[in-house]
Amino acid sequence: MADEVVVLDTWASMFGMRVRIALAEKVIKYEYKEQDLKNKSELLLKMNPVHKKIPVLIHNGKPVCESLIIVQYIDEVWKDRCPLLPSDPYQRAQARFWADFVDAKVYPVSRRIWATKGEEQEAAKKEYFETYKILEGELGGKPYFGGETFGFVDIALITFYSWFYAYETFGNFSMEAECPKIIAWVKRCLQRESVAKTLPDQKKVLDFVVGLRKNLGLE
Amino acid sequence: MADEVVVLDTWASMFGMRVRIALAEKVIKYEYKEQDLKNKSELLLKMNPVHKKIPVLIHNGKPVCESLIIVQYIDEVWKDRCPLLPSDPYQRAQARFWADFVDAKVYPVSRRIWATKGEEQEAAKKEYFETYKILEGELGGKPYFGGETFGFVDIALITFYSWFYAYETFGNFSMEAECPKIIAWVKRCLQRESVAKTLPDQKKVLDFVVGLRKNLGLE
Repeated sequence: MADEVVVLDTWASMFGMRVRIALAEKVIKYEYKEQDLKNKSELLLKMNPVHKKIPVLIHNGKPVCESLIIVQYIDEVWKDRCPLLPSDPYQRAQARFWADFVDAKVYPVSRRIWATKGEEQEAAKKEYFETYKILEGELGGKPYFGGETFGFVDIALITFYSWFYAYETFGNFSMEAECPKIIAWVKRCLQRESVAKTLPDQKKVLDFVVGLRKNLGLE
Repeated sequence: MADEVVVLDTWASMFGMRVRIALAEKVIKYEYKEQDLKNKSELLLKMNPVHKKIPVLIHNGKPVCESLIIVQYIDEVWKDRCPLLPSDPYQRAQARFWADFVDAKVYPVSRRIWATKGEEQEAAKKEYFETYKILEGELGGKPYFGGETFGFVDIALITFYSWFYAYETFGNFSMEAECPKIIAWVKRCLQRESVAKTLPDQKKVLDFVVGLRKNLGLE
């Protein structure tokens, strides 16, 4: 039986992009269904009744939710090609630790860069750079967080690149100047078709964030 | 080589208890090192420099952090006995989803039961019962969240039982009356030596929470 794969997502979601990069790495064909989060579809509510959030991967009719869980699922189902997590249990645990770090630390502090102003924003910027310094330390001299090969942690983090221009614009800083090792890593990741074809245009994301800021009364 | 396993933990942590239950299920001997979180040890800071939190599992000198990641690591390393996660990728994804739900929903709302008062506490209680109703729905007619056998989600949630008496005392409710299916599941779990011997006395936890409330100016 051919696999039927459907992705419920929105174009600007760094969580959804992870799923699309993982599927591209595994060369899995899928149907993409853009979701309107202001008017959630019956399909989304049925497939993720608990969190009612994207992304959802629907594989042969059965839903999997939460982006990092979906990427692990994709890796376990299509295990014959292009492994995303290491096979060694210790290395797997480390990969899960750093992917979790992206969700627990990078995401909330990144949001605060564009969703706050004044002193609150200055505090967010300080924490943002500290967070990326920790990531630069973990990257060390490796080409990828996964070591010699692009993997789980790379997928978890690279999708934030599409929002960098928005963070830089509203935070008034340069990632290249502040976190050069991260930018060198980004450039390596962008050489992969899975990444380059998935990430949206940074200017389109900036326009989207302008809209989000208006909703918060910041513009 | 015999495995050298050390656990850095504090007795009342529902996160740390997960690690101890998983090790007990796998019949792994380990050295337990109680940590003082007000005066963090050099060992803890060295083994978890990023989050500086317990629990940490140190296996042959190498640290693994974050309780759910540790439990998965334990399951992957000692895979010859008593599997904690299902072998089927879809069932594994579902187990990860519900364990994540416990961290994302059960933990924060449980904390709000004893750490707030008045209207804020009433809102927390409403959300707390809603959260457990979702869990009762997922449990359905199964003996365990893992189905016929005790597993990953059961380990993630059962440790909260040791705090139930504190939630009931400060929230002025009865879990038996509000969530009878959860209490029936708790009783099944408590029949396991791994659980019964790990969970601390509920009255000792209550005294501990009284101290936490004093620190917040609530007593």
